[in-house]
Amino acid sequence: MARLRVLGVGAGYFSQFQYLGWRNIADADCVAIVDRDQPKARALADRYGIPAVYGDLDAALDAVKPDLVDLITPPETHHACVARTTARGIPTICQKPFGTSYADAVALTELAERARVPLVIHENIRWQPWYREAGRMIDAGKLGTLHSIAFRLRPGDGQGQDAYLERQPYFQQMPRFLVKETAIHWIDTFRFLMGEVAAVYARLRRINPVIAGEDAGYIVFEFENGTTGLFDGNRLNDHVASNPRRTMGEAWIEGSTGVLRLDGDGGLWWKPHQQPEVRHEYDRGPDDTFGGGACEWLQRHVVAHFVSGTPLENTGRAYLANLRVQEAVYRSAAVGRRIELASFDPLTSTFPSLQFPKV
Amino acid sequence: MARLRVLGVGAGYFSQFQYLGWRNIADADCVAIVDRDQPKARALADRYGIPAVYGDLDAALDAVKPDLVDLITPPETHHACVARTTARGIPTICQKPFGTSYADAVALTELAERARVPLVIHENIRWQPWYREAGRMIDAGKLGTLHSIAFRLRPGDGQGQDAYLERQPYFQQMPRFLVKETAIHWIDTFRFLMGEVAAVYARLRRINPVIAGEDAGYIVFEFENGTTGLFDGNRLNDHVASNPRRTMGEAWIEGSTGVLRLDGDGGLWWKPHQQPEVRHEYDRGPDDTFGGGACEWLQRHVVAHFVSGTPLENTGRAYLANLRVQEAVYRSAAVGRRIELASFDPLTSTFPSLQFPKV
Repeated sequence: MARLRVLGVGAGYFSQFQYLGWRNIADADCVAIVDRDQPKARALADRYGIPAVYGDLDAALDAVKPDLVDLITPPETHHACVARTTARGIPTICQKPFGTSYADAVALTELAERARVPLVIHENIRWQPWYREAGRMIDAGKLGTLHSIAFRLRPGDGQGQDAYLERQPYFQQMPRFLVKETAIHWIDTFRFLMGEVAAVYARLRRINPVIAGEDAGYIVFEFENGTTGLFDGNRLNDHVASNPRRTMGEAWIEGSTGVLRLDGDGGLWWKPHQQPEVRHEYDRGPDDTFGGGACEWLQRHVVAHFVSGTPLENTGRAYLANLRVQEAVYRSAAVGRRIELASFDPLTSTFPSLQFPKV
Repeated sequence: MARLRVLGVGAGYFSQFQYLGWRNIADADCVAIVDRDQPKARALADRYGIPAVYGDLDAALDAVKPDLVDLITPPETHHACVARTTARGIPTICQKPFGTSYADAVALTELAERARVPLVIHENIRWQPWYREAGRMIDAGKLGTLHSIAFRLRPGDGQGQDAYLERQPYFQQMPRFLVKETAIHWIDTFRFLMGEVAAVYARLRRINPVIAGEDAGYIVFEFENGTTGLFDGNRLNDHVASNPRRTMGEAWIEGSTGVLRLDGDGGLWWKPHQQPEVRHEYDRGPDDTFGGGACEWLQRHVVAHFVSGTPLENTGRAYLANLRVQEAVYRSAAVGRRIELASFDPLTSTFPSLQFPKV
């Protein structure tokens, strides 16, 4: 089979990790980058050995005729781009946040489904090698009867006037920040490891007054199988790690046979019940890219789907489950109540937005 | 001044730590133990160099004429005992759980106040050396602007048919277990370190079906000063520690200047923001008794009050604040809502009890 021809759309901060991923995958060729800022696209293309650069999506689609589009652009652009790619029948990977709202995500999903074109969300944290290994251990019964999961998010990049400005300055303006931008990754990863969410409670706060949205908060999860989860996020403090962006925090997954702990360097530690904790040896992936090569693993699974027919994770339709939980989290924070997912419809639920005072 | 004559009441499992404490305090003499089970009392008395043993409280009070009574008995006995000691004007330390209910605790408090007799609750966790050191560091401004506190309780003694039977078998029958018996310590300690509680949310569950009450749960705290807290408790899993009963878990206290971490061996670690974590040297107390000598520190502060007039912590009146939070926690778990303390009255709030199915 011929190598998949991939067109990358977007040349922002995070796209470098995705272009690096494509360069490493033998079954795919990233053949061009589209971005209005062509010098920026050119610099990335040169860095990752990508031959062509375009300033316009339609022109690129006409010229390149890709087998797959990797959309690495902000939510406001998703609808226009996905409309173009799906109209041409081109399978598309779409970065998160997926669309501008839950309703927009539903519309994008239906657009792709009506066109019968695969649409996959680039939700990469569940592809980090430590969570894949944890999933294998859970599936193999190593943890016995599952009890709970917990994650302490502590990237430590949220203090002061200059918080986030160097890398992702738009973070300061997002009215919904910690959950929509960051915790969504662990909503997804918790579902990957523990199963579907039955109910949530959330308490969100803004510690740094220079930003618009919430930058700290707790989310209490109840899963349908009776296990529970805890997301404890705070972007201001950091954790013990040689690179606090590798795992962005620490996790514990617990069951009747013991505790599996993720440290800040991607190390996994297994503590059999009432016995000493020992390092669990596994391949935590490369140290020099995002999240142990999570982007590449996600991309490989998409390529494998087209090459070998293996199933896709986080199609648009599947991803809506994450967004329903996200909306339930914001609703819970607004009304101070536990929200059961079975009776929650984000499209009909109205509630006050979180409002933090302007400073 | 003459040494304080202390009468100990009770010879159950935990009393050994309190008799050890009295033996170590130069300004006090524990002169007798009262317990219906006189051979058990005799064994303890011999072990800790206490001269006399009685089977009846009134007889002991008549004979010993103590300056202070240390009541180390179950909640059902508190009212009768405190009525006797306060009627005689004898200052009393009362073990927790304090009384059989919130109403009983209020009645006990009023009993002592009407008699103008000091009543102190034996709430020892806030006296563990690591929390005292943390309090000193917070007061000294070491943590900058406080952000939050978190505790993961993981004693690991709650699995299987035999859970708790060896040490404290009545744990299996308590209809309210994790919060009333255990988390209450951290409700108190969080208040000691962070200030008064403005609101709580709680989700409680029973993992081990052989017991009556809850053995796992999350409590989300909002403090009046805007900081937040998290109690994540699970008696089934354990944590990394040479003795999991020393700290019973791990804690993080975070502020603008860094993160103070308590490990399972009572070690404190200070991580200045965006710098490596280093051990914080301090005296974590003796290794061979409960909680770094917490009981003795509590007892010393009571003795110091009578010797030097220093203030008492956790008088009955002050302790009611902990019980109000405890009741709000159970109410929150029952109704699935955040409870604001300002508008919560445990005496008039009615709500369904948590009910776990009989197995």
